[in-house]
Amino acid sequence: MTNTQVTLVQIDNYGPWTVTPEPRREPDLQALQATLFADLAELFGNRAGYVFYTRFDNMIAVTNGIDMDTHATIQESIGNRYPITVSMGVGVDTTPVAALEAATQRLQSAGSAQEADRIEVLSGEPLGPADRSDNDVQVAHFDVNDATGKYTDEIHAFDSFLAIERGYLSLAEHLRTDYDSLGFFVGGDNIIAVTRDMAPEEYAAVIESVRQEVGIELKVGVGHDRSAATAGMQAKHALEECRDNGTDVEFARPVLANQDD
Amino acid sequence: MTNTQVTLVQIDNYGPWTVTPEPRREPDLQALQATLFADLAELFGNRAGYVFYTRFDNMIAVTNGIDMDTHATIQESIGNRYPITVSMGVGVDTTPVAALEAATQRLQSAGSAQEADRIEVLSGEPLGPADRSDNDVQVAHFDVNDATGKYTDEIHAFDSFLAIERGYLSLAEHLRTDYDSLGFFVGGDNIIAVTRDMAPEEYAAVIESVRQEVGIELKVGVGHDRSAATAGMQAKHALEECRDNGTDVEFARPVLANQDD
Amino acid sequence: MTNTQVTLVQIDNYGPWTVTPEPRREPDLQALQATLFADLAELFGNRAGYVFYTRFDNMIAVTNGIDMDTHATIQESIGNRYPITVSMGVGVDTTPVAALEAATQRLQSAGSAQEADRIEVLSGEPLGPADRSDNDVQVAHFDVNDATGKYTDEIHAFDSFLAIERGYLSLAEHLRTDYDSLGFFVGGDNIIAVTRDMAPEEYAAVIESVRQEVGIELKVGVGHDRSAATAGMQAKHALEECRDNGTDVEFARPVLANQDD
Amino acid sequence: MTNTQVTLVQIDNYGPWTVTPEPRREPDLQALQATLFADLAELFGNRAGYVFYTRFDNMIAVTNGIDMDTHATIQESIGNRYPITVSMGVGVDTTPVAALEAATQRLQSAGSAQEADRIEVLSGEPLGPADRSDNDVQVAHFDVNDATGKYTDEIHAFDSFLAIERGYLSLAEHLRTDYDSLGFFVGGDNIIAVTRDMAPEEYAAVIESVRQEVGIELKVGVGHDRSAATAGMQAKHALEECRDNGTDVEFARPVLANQDD
Repeated sequence: MTNTQVTLVQIDNYGPWTVTPEPRREPDLQALQATLFADLAELFGNRAGYVFYTRFDNMIAVTNGIDMDTHATIQESIGNRYPITVSMGVGVDTTPVAALEAATQRLQSAGSAQEADRIEVLSGEPLGPADRSDNDVQVAHFDVNDATGKYTDEIHAFDSFLAIERGYLSLAEHLRTDYDSLGFFVGGDNIIAVTRDMAPEEYAAVIESVRQEVGIELKVGVGHDRSAATAGMQAKHALEECRDNGTDVEFARPVLANQDD
Repeated sequence: MTNTQVTLVQIDNYGPWTVTPEPRREPDLQALQATLFADLAELFGNRAGYVFYTRFDNMIAVTNGIDMDTHATIQESIGNRYPITVSMGVGVDTTPVAALEAATQRLQSAGSAQEADRIEVLSGEPLGPADRSDNDVQVAHFDVNDATGKYTDEIHAFDSFLAIERGYLSLAEHLRTDYDSLGFFVGGDNIIAVTRDMAPEEYAAVIESVRQEVGIELKVGVGHDRSAATAGMQAKHALEECRDNGTDVEFARPVLANQDD
Repeated sequence: MTNTQVTLVQIDNYGPWTVTPEPRREPDLQALQATLFADLAELFGNRAGYVFYTRFDNMIAVTNGIDMDTHATIQESIGNRYPITVSMGVGVDTTPVAALEAATQRLQSAGSAQEADRIEVLSGEPLGPADRSDNDVQVAHFDVNDATGKYTDEIHAFDSFLAIERGYLSLAEHLRTDYDSLGFFVGGDNIIAVTRDMAPEEYAAVIESVRQEVGIELKVGVGHDRSAATAGMQAKHALEECRDNGTDVEFARPVLANQDD
Repeated sequence: MTNTQVTLVQIDNYGPWTVTPEPRREPDLQALQATLFADLAELFGNRAGYVFYTRFDNMIAVTNGIDMDTHATIQESIGNRYPITVSMGVGVDTTPVAALEAATQRLQSAGSAQEADRIEVLSGEPLGPADRSDNDVQVAHFDVNDATGKYTDEIHAFDSFLAIERGYLSLAEHLRTDYDSLGFFVGGDNIIAVTRDMAPEEYAAVIESVRQEVGIELKVGVGHDRSAATAGMQAKHALEECRDNGTDVEFARPVLANQDD
């Protein structure tokens, strides 16, 4: 059974800041948001975590193995290098959706995201070292079948983008509603989901739902491990096997084979 | 009548690179993509352009006033500082969709996005100084009514995100299909569109369509000028007027008032 | 005769900020300073300027061809993306030292660098388009003869560094005192100087002084043009000729050869 | 007795790369180097390490507590996000100079810094957890007395810079030759040294030597602990005490006071 640790990173009082005293230049806001995300991706990423940009002012991270002290260091570092600060709520549960629910409540109960004095909240109870297991995190890496051949090289760049967005939204809605799982568009034609322990036939079913609903054909590689980094890397290798084998769903083989095999 | 100059920025042969010789660490790819976008936002942004991250491997920029030499400098600078290179196609037309169509064809006709030797293409005919006018670029800045109160502070962070994504996709589809215009999610609850010269009642209609379709309530400020930067800043000020007046659609007043007024 | 435009970029009230309310983490300060410099290098660099990090809280830029509006955009962009702001003074004169003197006075006369309300000063009179010529900027690119063979691969990394620092300081002192010129260490074994119109024998003399004083052997390529970027690129090519020819001083040949040649 | 772990980070084959096939634009090289340093400062800094930019193509880090796996992750991450790769040698010894000597030899024995196929070397034996103590790292944070009042606000920006450089070089030479210690200019008027366990009177002596030699007046705060981050933060607080007390040398009080006090 999975046991996902999720961190919600929220820029404090961001909306009002972007228009005070006057609306700020959009390219600066875009650069600020993207740089902040890149920094968090590296800082959590070097601790085996994954961060997703989502709305940029609210980012979602999978942080199994990362304790509160490390969260505090990252929070302090952001406060020292940016004109804004961030709050972080950390939640753990057997499904990613429930874990994010817990993380969200940590921040909501501390006050509004647009309250000027609700800053640098840091709240949550991470999974302790003794409670971690190799099944804690399941990562599924999807991509669109032949996206370059069918879309990028053939149709209008915005229509390619809309097709992928349509596929993404359909997938994310199904994962969230039917499987208590979180799916994120990560660029190109790639979607990475952090899921509860879904079975191969459940992945096949969700892929079929997306195909029927919006006509986008996906495949998926799946990995699981004690951290997002290793589960995610397994998922990438499994996705390569989909490419090699022409299959839609591949699960990573266990990293350490059973000695009796 | 608008006359939009659009640049399609495409990372060369990116998909294969991300898995050669083995799949690369996801946090590194995320940081690379976001940093590249932040850089382009600033480099084009300092020349009064706007860049949208879209798929990250294919980014769309509004570049009225930026000539091919400047494009070449930016392209060279990226090649010197990143492990990847970019190609750029530039198109101009009376609607943003047609301009992007032209830009897309510049790249597609040069070869596949995943051809190892189709690198650093730079192709297009920008709008010359003599052909520019104060009506060339129309920018519409949308946001979600009371997003913090209704979503961020109240519901699960992923459900907030999905609600905004649903609103975005509905809006982007309508703008593209019915108005030959391009809409981009830019973080938070903000969507920036580059449009043909749409009238106030057309904006009201598209907002109403989104409300009926997915239940998300938007408002919009609209500006126009000879560059994305100034049109976009006008749009931001007009959106502030929506907030102040409780209205759904506001057009920026002309920057220089008619002397007879 | 050269006519150099120099911009002094100064972080406002930086020292006090680094220890308020408590001393801030050093890695954050280092990352902040280096990122700020990298940003300025690109933003001025895309306009044919050069920026040198110097003390990081006081950076020196050669900005021929960059007007006050562009300075203002860069200043605003920094203020939007960093926790600190910058002031900028711009000076023009026939020697780099006199130009920086004028730029320095612009800031000093506005108040102390550590005055809390002396922020975002922007002051100066850049060289207008009509006053510019192809002789305005002279750039000299020095490096250490066989630095890798003699130092990097042979001796202790800190001793290599000290040797190069010794060479740099000796050169910078001579250039400043004897030639009214500004020399900057730019990494590796490279020193870039912005000079008055020094003659080949003056470069030979300064190289000989450094050799006698600290035993470091330098060579230099020299270029001149209307901007730092083109003069600097000429200097790099001239330095390559030093390498090819085994010479100590090379001047770039005029870019456009005389028609009678 | 100190037991410093030092990492030498060297860009592989950098010099040749900067001029292949033609010399690359200087602002791009400057931005590349500074961004790489900023990244390393954060990645090591989040693990309680300190990095100094030194020559930029050869950077020196104090890495007590950071194991080879973490070095490998950082090395891989750089390779994925930059057009260049880095090699790293790790050394441990009772003085910083000897530790860097060991780190340097790790790289030199693997081949030349400009050998095209000597890439991504990772070599060294870090200090194991069982061997670490609270005396391992001593950090001294120097600054110039009243630098803003005497220099920044009063004299030419380049003369201020040269004065500080002169003070830095004098200090670094004395620390290296007389005390087997490493001093680094870190911007502003700040110099951070990683030292062997120097006594207060030794710091007073080195400050006096610099004053006599180049007329620059320094003060210093000193801390020691098991990592650079905590020793460095202690040093900063001790330097604040110099400011408060008007003293030249202050040692941080032990973090945990003796119970009998």
